Amino acid sequence: MALELWIEVDADGHRAGLPVDSDELLELARAIERAGSTLGGVLAHAGSSYGLSDADALRALAEQERAACVHAAERLRATGLPCPNVSVGSTPTALSAKGLPGVTEVRAGVYVFLDLMMANTGICTPDDIALSVLTTVIGHQPARGWAIVDAGWMALSRDRGTQGQGADQGYGWVCNAEGEVIDGLRVTECNQEHGIIQHLRGAALDIVDRLPVGTQLRILPNHACATGAQFSAYRALLPGGLVAPWPRMKGW
Amino acid sequence: MALELWIEVDADGHRAGLPVDSDELLELARAIERAGSTLGGVLAHAGSSYGLSDADALRALAEQERAACVHAAERLRATGLPCPNVSVGSTPTALSAKGLPGVTEVRAGVYVFLDLMMANTGICTPDDIALSVLTTVIGHQPARGWAIVDAGWMALSRDRGTQGQGADQGYGWVCNAEGEVIDGLRVTECNQEHGIIQHLRGAALDIVDRLPVGTQLRILPNHACATGAQFSAYRALLPGGLVAPWPRMKGW
Repeated sequence: MALELWIEVDADGHRAGLPVDSDELLELARAIERAGSTLGGVLAHAGSSYGLSDADALRALAEQERAACVHAAERLRATGLPCPNVSVGSTPTALSAKGLPGVTEVRAGVYVFLDLMMANTGICTPDDIALSVLTTVIGHQPARGWAIVDAGWMALSRDRGTQGQGADQGYGWVCNAEGEVIDGLRVTECNQEHGIIQHLRGAALDIVDRLPVGTQLRILPNHACATGAQFSAYRALLPGGLVAPWPRMKGW
Repeated sequence: MALELWIEVDADGHRAGLPVDSDELLELARAIERAGSTLGGVLAHAGSSYGLSDADALRALAEQERAACVHAAERLRATGLPCPNVSVGSTPTALSAKGLPGVTEVRAGVYVFLDLMMANTGICTPDDIALSVLTTVIGHQPARGWAIVDAGWMALSRDRGTQGQGADQGYGWVCNAEGEVIDGLRVTECNQEHGIIQHLRGAALDIVDRLPVGTQLRILPNHACATGAQFSAYRALLPGGLVAPWPRMKGW
């Protein structure tokens, strides 16, 4: 069977892909041709962008990703091989690129929701985040300054992607039910079915009075991809407060 | 509407529940009665057991959990209130308890699969673990000693529960397709859709020869609850190698 195959190239030394100047790149393309398959293109994902928080550095990495991928395609084309597609990825580079000449596809994903990891890179603010987990206060540990909610990591996901960035956002920012950020509150810990909300400036806050049992809250996630994957559907908030279920694909 | 309500009590200062000797315990039970509802019982979860790795300490915590829960029930009954059920939880204490007099229900969960966190507590060995993720080698970074597999944290989960225990097992142990542990290999890192397997004793191992592209492997998870939740069904291995899909409940 003739398959269309793509070659992953390494644009930033982050994970996978062939070096763009390697002999292996050309050898692999020839092997695809010999096997009777078609080379669909080259792709890269500059995942190291998640560790950056400076607009200039992100722009530079976006150009590095673009240039590396286009260079790989041009090397292939110079040998007479087809390479119709040049695909780049990563939300921070996609939203930072000044231009994408030579690129035919951008595979950014999390840009549709954004999240606290993306806010840490500086490409958005928490107000831009379009995915949250609706939860309810179910108890307290007053002596510890804890409000306990019914969203643990089974709801929020275990993803603590902001931990390795400049600003650790715990298991997420806390908003009221309307989605307005409540200053100074964080989900500081999670168990499987319980989340713990604390005030960042210590237990002085009277958490029981401020967040009585039954209070509904929304949590902004570290990583929207991981949080979304904990659910089989989204609930889209439409104008007028209507809620529409949006099924999501499960699996990978 | 008359509801059957249970009261959570705190057996180990770990998370939630009322202190077993508190006035609030009796007040809450009376409030349930006044509201026309029924007190179904008391429950506890000795979650601090996940941090232990000594059989004597686990036995002692199991007895502490049992005694605290039974004591709470007896205080309620002494005031004339009904308290038919006494429920304890946590797999390490359930499997370590010498006896459970006075207990009417054990809500242990992960004991059905077990996992590397449970192996770290000493209540099982890796051979006892009944849940694994089947994955395939899709590439290498030979200079780094990496084999890259198609199971990232979207498959294995982000749960790194063994990180806070005595022995950090990375993102999981590596087995061959038959489920036999391959000594010295670990999933050391994960991205969303990629896992990285390395030899614990450095890059000296020729990982490309040992795990060529296409090799099928099984990964034993940190936490079976979190890993199972990444999938909509299990594939049960029956005698003779037959595979039966077992749908699982989604949500919490």
